Amino acid sequence: MTQAVQAESTEVSGDLYAEVRTFYARQMRRVDSLDIEGFADTFTDDGVVLHANGARAEGRAQMVAGMYKNLPRYRDVAVRHWFDHLLIEPEPDSGGNTLRVSYYSLVTLVDAQGAITFEPTFTVEDVLVRRDGRLLTAERIIHRDLPVVF
Amino acid sequence: MTQAVQAESTEVSGDLYAEVRTFYARQMRRVDSLDIEGFADTFTDDGVVLHANGARAEGRAQMVAGMYKNLPRYRDVAVRHWFDHLLIEPEPDSGGNTLRVSYYSLVTLVDAQGAITFEPTFTVEDVLVRRDGRLLTAERIIHRDLPVVF
Amino acid sequence: MTQAVQAESTEVSGDLYAEVRTFYARQMRRVDSLDIEGFADTFTDDGVVLHANGARAEGRAQMVAGMYKNLPRYRDVAVRHWFDHLLIEPEPDSGGNTLRVSYYSLVTLVDAQGAITFEPTFTVEDVLVRRDGRLLTAERIIHRDLPVVF
Repeated sequence: MTQAVQAESTEVSGDLYAEVRTFYARQMRRVDSLDIEGFADTFTDDGVVLHANGARAEGRAQMVAGMYKNLPRYRDVAVRHWFDHLLIEPEPDSGGNTLRVSYYSLVTLVDAQGAITFEPTFTVEDVLVRRDGRLLTAERIIHRDLPVVF
Repeated sequence: MTQAVQAESTEVSGDLYAEVRTFYARQMRRVDSLDIEGFADTFTDDGVVLHANGARAEGRAQMVAGMYKNLPRYRDVAVRHWFDHLLIEPEPDSGGNTLRVSYYSLVTLVDAQGAITFEPTFTVEDVLVRRDGRLLTAERIIHRDLPVVF
Repeated sequence: MTQAVQAESTEVSGDLYAEVRTFYARQMRRVDSLDIEGFADTFTDDGVVLHANGARAEGRAQMVAGMYKNLPRYRDVAVRHWFDHLLIEPEPDSGGNTLRVSYYSLVTLVDAQGAITFEPTFTVEDVLVRRDGRLLTAERIIHRDLPVVF
């Protein structure tokens, strides 16, 4: 099992790490500023998002519609998505043009007075693809973190 | 709009990403350990900080004075500044010696018993300059995150 | 004092930064999924952990025993360890095979209903070693963040 640590960790160059982090830095600024169309533009036309509650959006049009429907949740609060522990795994034989990326996500909500609340934590699994040189999200599966049963 | 994702994301090399993150790792250790002079030394002599409350410090001397004045806020609490989603944009024609960097910031305060509280979230815009090979902050604008009006 | 910012920041290549972050991304997935043996396998056989409460585990066997003893703390909660501000300092004359790494750590606990609580913040000092090409933790010292006395 520990072999995997070596084999996979050496696959991720510094340049790729910086590129992926920069991609998410831009994508999250768009979603957190409620730039719904701009956010959808960071997905492929046929991009899929599977939310933790089971809701599924297929394609940019559904994604945009779903986000407008959810907008009232963000009235009077500033939302921020925080990421950590990115694991970037280039798909074999994709020439580096398909990346499996997973990461931890924490979501803060701050009201106009500065009071902060937190959503539960999530773990996200993305498939990123490079089209005409730029990264896009082709698939996103969001898992709410649940207690381990033991 | 999405073109920007490509164009800019490819500008940030892994080495630059690591350098900038390391710069902030050191700078934040200094501010969080209340090493006021050490923190001020990570700014240019004429560095400017514009705080979210509108307070403005110009030059290291003002910065140091302002921080000593604010010290009582940190009596009996350990403060930690957490960053995420760095966007690093080298200034064109600066030869990589001027960087615009923005990032999310979360601030925790922990008391001696371990109880944690949180400040509101912030987005920070820095200008970093390289002088004699090392990075320094020339300008910092701190924005408190506010609800989007829609 | 500021000279250190330059000297040390230029030592960390983008590739090394990505390798270390990927190492922790894997190690934290193991500890947070309560994969105790898998977590212990990311340490050297004689790895040492000094906990913030003074407890000390020497070697994988003690580490595993201690973690099983602590398992009840994680019944009905999903734990997640968040890192920030990594400082990576290759040990001189180690050929890049020994790294001193320190980082901030925040710990979240989420119950099945999604309610979140936070442990105090910590600062961690690790020694990582590269054996047969892969990183392992040889030593970990965990400090609970305490108010600065002034």
